[in-house]
Amino acid sequence: MTIEISTFAWVPPFAQGYVKDLRPRWALAEAGLDYTVRTLTDEEANGAAYRAWQPFGQVPAYRDEEVELFESGAIVLHIARKSPRLAPRDPQEAAQVEAWVLAALNSVEPKIDNLILPPLFYAGEAWVEGARPHAERLVEFRLKSLSGWLDGREWLAGRFSVADIIMATVLRGLEDEPVLARHPRVAAYLERCLARPGFAAAHAAQLETFAQHEPA
Amino acid sequence: MTIEISTFAWVPPFAQGYVKDLRPRWALAEAGLDYTVRTLTDEEANGAAYRAWQPFGQVPAYRDEEVELFESGAIVLHIARKSPRLAPRDPQEAAQVEAWVLAALNSVEPKIDNLILPPLFYAGEAWVEGARPHAERLVEFRLKSLSGWLDGREWLAGRFSVADIIMATVLRGLEDEPVLARHPRVAAYLERCLARPGFAAAHAAQLETFAQHEPA
Repeated sequence: MTIEISTFAWVPPFAQGYVKDLRPRWALAEAGLDYTVRTLTDEEANGAAYRAWQPFGQVPAYRDEEVELFESGAIVLHIARKSPRLAPRDPQEAAQVEAWVLAALNSVEPKIDNLILPPLFYAGEAWVEGARPHAERLVEFRLKSLSGWLDGREWLAGRFSVADIIMATVLRGLEDEPVLARHPRVAAYLERCLARPGFAAAHAAQLETFAQHEPA
Repeated sequence: MTIEISTFAWVPPFAQGYVKDLRPRWALAEAGLDYTVRTLTDEEANGAAYRAWQPFGQVPAYRDEEVELFESGAIVLHIARKSPRLAPRDPQEAAQVEAWVLAALNSVEPKIDNLILPPLFYAGEAWVEGARPHAERLVEFRLKSLSGWLDGREWLAGRFSVADIIMATVLRGLEDEPVLARHPRVAAYLERCLARPGFAAAHAAQLETFAQHEPA
């Protein structure tokens, strides 16, 4: 089995440990599957060759002997099906894992991004503070719903799954936001996810790639 | 085969024809599968019984004899696998369909939502105009990438698929935005999608549900 994922060769320190190739790295660590990394300069990421693999010039993209694809959510679902440790055990568990991967990426992540990204990318612009209360309210709604679902559950969909990998990487964006502490069940769930050796391995592997490509 | 999807009983006119149960309705129309509709009042959507089916109180949710799940993206992927007309024909096509469903919902829809929703929900607030140029720039990037992918392609991933259903319902949000006309290949693709009888059937079926529940 030859698995290759794409990552940027290097990103600024604030983004290190958070780039989305963390998700397939984590899934592959949980699955016990080896992989190689194809690192990209910004120029390569925007070139036609890479766009044929990843149409938006983003990371990660993925290929193995059978398929190539992109989008971290689709990649981890594909990895899960190849792994006895991560594969859903029956059709209902498979359906719930897919539902929760999609929920994390479409119903939760965009709300969190709208809370945390404007102060990062548009610091000092007047509109950022005006947008914030609405963004925070929408995140609050989502965390309340998620907290309700987690009542009595250790993981989102049966045993630990790629849905937890995606949701944890989404929720990590809130680590410095007061809204997370207001939902202790969600905060405890995030802590449970991030305590897994698979997360530590993926995180260390991402940092190692960037260290190898540190600009002079 | 008994298939049930959830929808709101009624929504205000500006949202009619755009609620996300349109996506499974469209997929089911393309697949030629019958379904029943479970309509929800706002109170029911927020109740504990429905939250066990759809944890965020949103629509649509879905069930058949085998599974129940939620999130429109996960639902249409499930429907596709049940249908000879929509099912991917090989592993690479399956991977690309999943990648494009995820891309539409995570890489494209959040950018479009940030362009079109603030003027709708927060009309008159000062920050809305400040946010707009950034939102438009990010949509522009995505449409440019999408346009590149569509060069020489009729559909996103081989034959017409649920990825096109999701992408078309996402792009419809731009129908009144000048940015769409600046990308004629994307605009033509959207037109091609919306010209399908399956879209017309789904759209009419959604409007019919709301007409049946028109408040006195």
